[in-house]
Amino acid sequence: MQVGMVGLGRMGGNMARRLMQGGHDCFVYDIDARAALELAQHGATPCASLSELVASLAPPRAVWIMVPAPVVDAVLDDLAALLQAGDVVVDGGNTFWKHDVRRAAQLAPQGIVYVDVGTSGGVRGLQRGYCLMAGGTREGFERIEPLLQTLAPGSDAAAPTPGRSPGGMAEQGYLHCGPAGAGHFVKMVHNAIEYGIMAAYAEGFNLLHQAGQGGASSSHNAVALDSPQAYRYDFDLAEIAELWRRGSVIGSWLLDLTAQALHGDPGLQRYTGTVFDSGEGRWALGAAVELGVPAPVLAASLFNRFESRDAGVFAMKTLSAMREQFGGHLEAEANEPPHEGTNS
Amino acid sequence: MQVGMVGLGRMGGNMARRLMQGGHDCFVYDIDARAALELAQHGATPCASLSELVASLAPPRAVWIMVPAPVVDAVLDDLAALLQAGDVVVDGGNTFWKHDVRRAAQLAPQGIVYVDVGTSGGVRGLQRGYCLMAGGTREGFERIEPLLQTLAPGSDAAAPTPGRSPGGMAEQGYLHCGPAGAGHFVKMVHNAIEYGIMAAYAEGFNLLHQAGQGGASSSHNAVALDSPQAYRYDFDLAEIAELWRRGSVIGSWLLDLTAQALHGDPGLQRYTGTVFDSGEGRWALGAAVELGVPAPVLAASLFNRFESRDAGVFAMKTLSAMREQFGGHLEAEANEPPHEGTNS
Amino acid sequence: MQVGMVGLGRMGGNMARRLMQGGHDCFVYDIDARAALELAQHGATPCASLSELVASLAPPRAVWIMVPAPVVDAVLDDLAALLQAGDVVVDGGNTFWKHDVRRAAQLAPQGIVYVDVGTSGGVRGLQRGYCLMAGGTREGFERIEPLLQTLAPGSDAAAPTPGRSPGGMAEQGYLHCGPAGAGHFVKMVHNAIEYGIMAAYAEGFNLLHQAGQGGASSSHNAVALDSPQAYRYDFDLAEIAELWRRGSVIGSWLLDLTAQALHGDPGLQRYTGTVFDSGEGRWALGAAVELGVPAPVLAASLFNRFESRDAGVFAMKTLSAMREQFGGHLEAEANEPPHEGTNS
Amino acid sequence: MQVGMVGLGRMGGNMARRLMQGGHDCFVYDIDARAALELAQHGATPCASLSELVASLAPPRAVWIMVPAPVVDAVLDDLAALLQAGDVVVDGGNTFWKHDVRRAAQLAPQGIVYVDVGTSGGVRGLQRGYCLMAGGTREGFERIEPLLQTLAPGSDAAAPTPGRSPGGMAEQGYLHCGPAGAGHFVKMVHNAIEYGIMAAYAEGFNLLHQAGQGGASSSHNAVALDSPQAYRYDFDLAEIAELWRRGSVIGSWLLDLTAQALHGDPGLQRYTGTVFDSGEGRWALGAAVELGVPAPVLAASLFNRFESRDAGVFAMKTLSAMREQFGGHLEAEANEPPHEGTNS
Repeated sequence: MQVGMVGLGRMGGNMARRLMQGGHDCFVYDIDARAALELAQHGATPCASLSELVASLAPPRAVWIMVPAPVVDAVLDDLAALLQAGDVVVDGGNTFWKHDVRRAAQLAPQGIVYVDVGTSGGVRGLQRGYCLMAGGTREGFERIEPLLQTLAPGSDAAAPTPGRSPGGMAEQGYLHCGPAGAGHFVKMVHNAIEYGIMAAYAEGFNLLHQAGQGGASSSHNAVALDSPQAYRYDFDLAEIAELWRRGSVIGSWLLDLTAQALHGDPGLQRYTGTVFDSGEGRWALGAAVELGVPAPVLAASLFNRFESRDAGVFAMKTLSAMREQFGGHLEAEANEPPHEGTNS
Repeated sequence: MQVGMVGLGRMGGNMARRLMQGGHDCFVYDIDARAALELAQHGATPCASLSELVASLAPPRAVWIMVPAPVVDAVLDDLAALLQAGDVVVDGGNTFWKHDVRRAAQLAPQGIVYVDVGTSGGVRGLQRGYCLMAGGTREGFERIEPLLQTLAPGSDAAAPTPGRSPGGMAEQGYLHCGPAGAGHFVKMVHNAIEYGIMAAYAEGFNLLHQAGQGGASSSHNAVALDSPQAYRYDFDLAEIAELWRRGSVIGSWLLDLTAQALHGDPGLQRYTGTVFDSGEGRWALGAAVELGVPAPVLAASLFNRFESRDAGVFAMKTLSAMREQFGGHLEAEANEPPHEGTNS
Repeated sequence: MQVGMVGLGRMGGNMARRLMQGGHDCFVYDIDARAALELAQHGATPCASLSELVASLAPPRAVWIMVPAPVVDAVLDDLAALLQAGDVVVDGGNTFWKHDVRRAAQLAPQGIVYVDVGTSGGVRGLQRGYCLMAGGTREGFERIEPLLQTLAPGSDAAAPTPGRSPGGMAEQGYLHCGPAGAGHFVKMVHNAIEYGIMAAYAEGFNLLHQAGQGGASSSHNAVALDSPQAYRYDFDLAEIAELWRRGSVIGSWLLDLTAQALHGDPGLQRYTGTVFDSGEGRWALGAAVELGVPAPVLAASLFNRFESRDAGVFAMKTLSAMREQFGGHLEAEANEPPHEGTNS
Repeated sequence: MQVGMVGLGRMGGNMARRLMQGGHDCFVYDIDARAALELAQHGATPCASLSELVASLAPPRAVWIMVPAPVVDAVLDDLAALLQAGDVVVDGGNTFWKHDVRRAAQLAPQGIVYVDVGTSGGVRGLQRGYCLMAGGTREGFERIEPLLQTLAPGSDAAAPTPGRSPGGMAEQGYLHCGPAGAGHFVKMVHNAIEYGIMAAYAEGFNLLHQAGQGGASSSHNAVALDSPQAYRYDFDLAEIAELWRRGSVIGSWLLDLTAQALHGDPGLQRYTGTVFDSGEGRWALGAAVELGVPAPVLAASLFNRFESRDAGVFAMKTLSAMREQFGGHLEAEANEPPHEGTNS
């Protein structure tokens, strides 16, 4: 079917390509005109503006936007002025689901159908297919279902769940999750889980990485080990990651990726230790708090990312200030153990 | 090769069967004689006692024990009196790695080689193969390597890691991780990661499960929602689990299992909400603390299990006691909101 | 000065009494007419309605509302229709500070001055005085400062901070913290700290409470102790709380209250273990998340309260479901240890 | 009474001075002879060696050691060779309570009585008095009780707990908590609570410190604020700390100290953000884990200190590695927001 794709970054560009590989007819637009021209080489029709894109599509149209969260409202405003009743607009980005609820209600009086689609898969989605979580009216969902079928990985991407009768869209890798916002809500929770899983592996590999302290003077550890002989391991993390990929309980795609990364750079030296977050973990934690639902693993995962960006330093200084007040000495410099003999 | 298997519970019994399927000659013993007799039907030689088992094996022997942690020392004491220099004893259970360090040192003067093997795979290991993490001397490891090769899943269990030259034992699903204790240390960290991953999924599904509070009076939530219209979803958790298995970043074997469980029992009504832990998460957290390594996700995962067994109730009562002291009223009964108007 | 007090629950009623003790002239209203009549016995002028209250006050008026968060907007709407330019309305309740920002802006065009005051002190504030955190314009703040001076504890409530020149309102126990919302923001953070401190004591007393497991079979602990001889204490928590009140680093008013509670009920048997939260901890965590500020202690404190109301049970069931899938047996009933011998 | 004090650092030296102020006769020794000479100016008898110290005391002796944890065993070994049956040795340092259990048992056959005393108070204990938590036999405790009475703050240090009959040692600020190790166990839990309380304040002040992000471009925060107008505060932390000291629920000695520190250095610029821990938090967390007792606040407090010493960096690098694998780009440098448009 015809589709307009707005926003041709890593995600949008690859999705357009996968759609074209599946036989769809893509009209593409990006504020960076080169992105559209590049896709033209794969068969897309590049458009120089949103209005050109809308004009090129036969009504009822389907326009899929894949733009950074801060500009979604501006793009939707522009589109709303161009689209007409019966058209569908899909937000496939990482959007705060409460905005979906608001936007769907705002566009409805015009007869424009808003569908929110949470999209997982990263840059590898072009080959693997994307996992697609849709929210909105059934009508809207069905209008774009041919696109979802193409973008999704298909049932072969995983073995059938024993006892489950074949069929259904979840098995293909896409799902109509509920009314407006449901797609991004499910994607938000998906990412919250992702944060937690990533942190679980990261903690484990860090623990293995530091298991040799008993054989050396540690730079981190301010307290002498009670049993140094128990901590004299020098683990090969890349081999262990590779090992766990087979037969263990913790096999996963993220572990596959970790094994790849460790294989190429066993000390992970190309990374700085600063990690960003893209908003969805925060929204998920906000939702958990509003709902009164405990989410300690998500919280820990998120806070560690905040701390990696030094957002906790003032708190640490507050601790040092108290320690100086009752301990009588300025907190030692990093890696210098504290003065012994002052009991708090 | 010949091997004696001691302890024929779910793990030991299945491992003996997989070993026999791989052509090994198994002599088996369990304090419950029926377990040995049952394995005899699969080709094992049942033994009525540890001494009969040792006597049946030709030296240099290999004895693999697969018994509950609290009885390992007793079994090893009995074996030490029966085995001779050059024999290998393998502890494949869930053992505290510091005990391995001690036991290996205790058995070495007798010439008995101690190998610790962390074993992952659960009851499905019989078909899938087991992921095996070994610790001990190279000699000991090589002596039992034929067993590990059979027990492990083999390289087909996962796609090759791009860029990695084929070969090596990790690719088969077993690894010599280091000296005594290294196998169980790696297994311990494996389980710590497992705790974290499981908790990440559990938090996510719980959040989805409670996302409909805006459409109903919640029994849990003591604070009125500021935006109830954003929480009116009724998610189909089984379909979402199935969906995420394809193309998403969080696909994993544990998710496959979750999808199976949710498919059969969408409300998870057959479970009580009480969850046990088997020690390895505790040991991992203990190691992290001794090494000065942060492990907040592991800690959260473990503490939630403790709380599911009511180990935190007294702490909560302490909170209520303080609240009564400054708020002037006894904490409301469960599900009754607190008296408004007292600002702490 | 003249003041109208709306909402005469535990907080509002006591505050009116303290104001009258300080010589202020209080006109009081509550939807429960008995509350106003009771205060009349302490010298207040009871009003039968908001309009009567407003009519009784000489302009420019000061009306202080002390009502549950969910009804603040309704009360303010009613007041806005009755008040006139130059009047001040104070919200002294536990209000979400973003609502203050909105309300101050909504009332400004009418010339009504909105002041938000976070109030700490609980039921003991009548005697001890209240700690008051005010937000709003300087004009509004100064209009109500005589009330704050009376409500606050005064400088004698704590020893002078060494090196600090005497004087200033913080020393009296009230402060103009900043523009609209600042008072409730500071109060919100205050309560977040309170949650954390309370949880710190609660964890500590719980740990002491369970330190005798080595001498008995524990009902909670699924894993046998490695060193039972180290856990044979039977601590007298009431005496320990009393002890820590003198000379220790952790002396505090909350500890004083805990000592009182433990003295009266050493086993804390009158409490159920269910603990509520009043919203401010949630808002603080929400703010931390929006600002990218780590708040793990606050998060842990809050989540434990959620869990005490069974909001985490579905997550635990999810864990049991996975454990059944890979372990081959249904999670044991509470207090029955898990089947040994299945290695995950 | 006569007492030998071994270890004259900040704690031991001040304690000897307080004992002498109370009329006790102190014989003092430190490996740094200048420390003993300095105390001689306050009336102590300096000793040049442990044997001189022991020889100077009339049996039955009381020797109080106040030395760093790593040298306690060496000092005790030396003392054990010098002391005789009936002598008491007190370990007043920050000792792992399991070592007390072991040491008490080791010294008992010689008739040497071992008493463990957890000591809180910091450098201000000289004036304020020390909070003393003792463990050991009743006989040992009673032998040193005169010292405890002098070192403790006395009942005036806090108002009486309402309803509590006057009397008892806890009211004086010392307590016989139980058998060997009980004193250090209670002190360990005390310090765990201290960690949690300190972290609660630190989080709160950090949150206040960052509440102005809506008015400026933040360096930490990678996600744009949804409501920047709600975060435009510029709080005076020193005034807020001073404010909370009067009438609020969170008044405490640690808050008093924080107010002092913020008064002198409102931006806490003299601190680096690196914070050490002295072992007791770790032991407490280890105990909680062994006992199956949840301690999330303690864990969070401790892990943040670990992270302040960069012990979590490798975990963060692991996250970046995964993000690069699925997101297709290297984690941005610190303070550069991530590339938009890649949905994980």
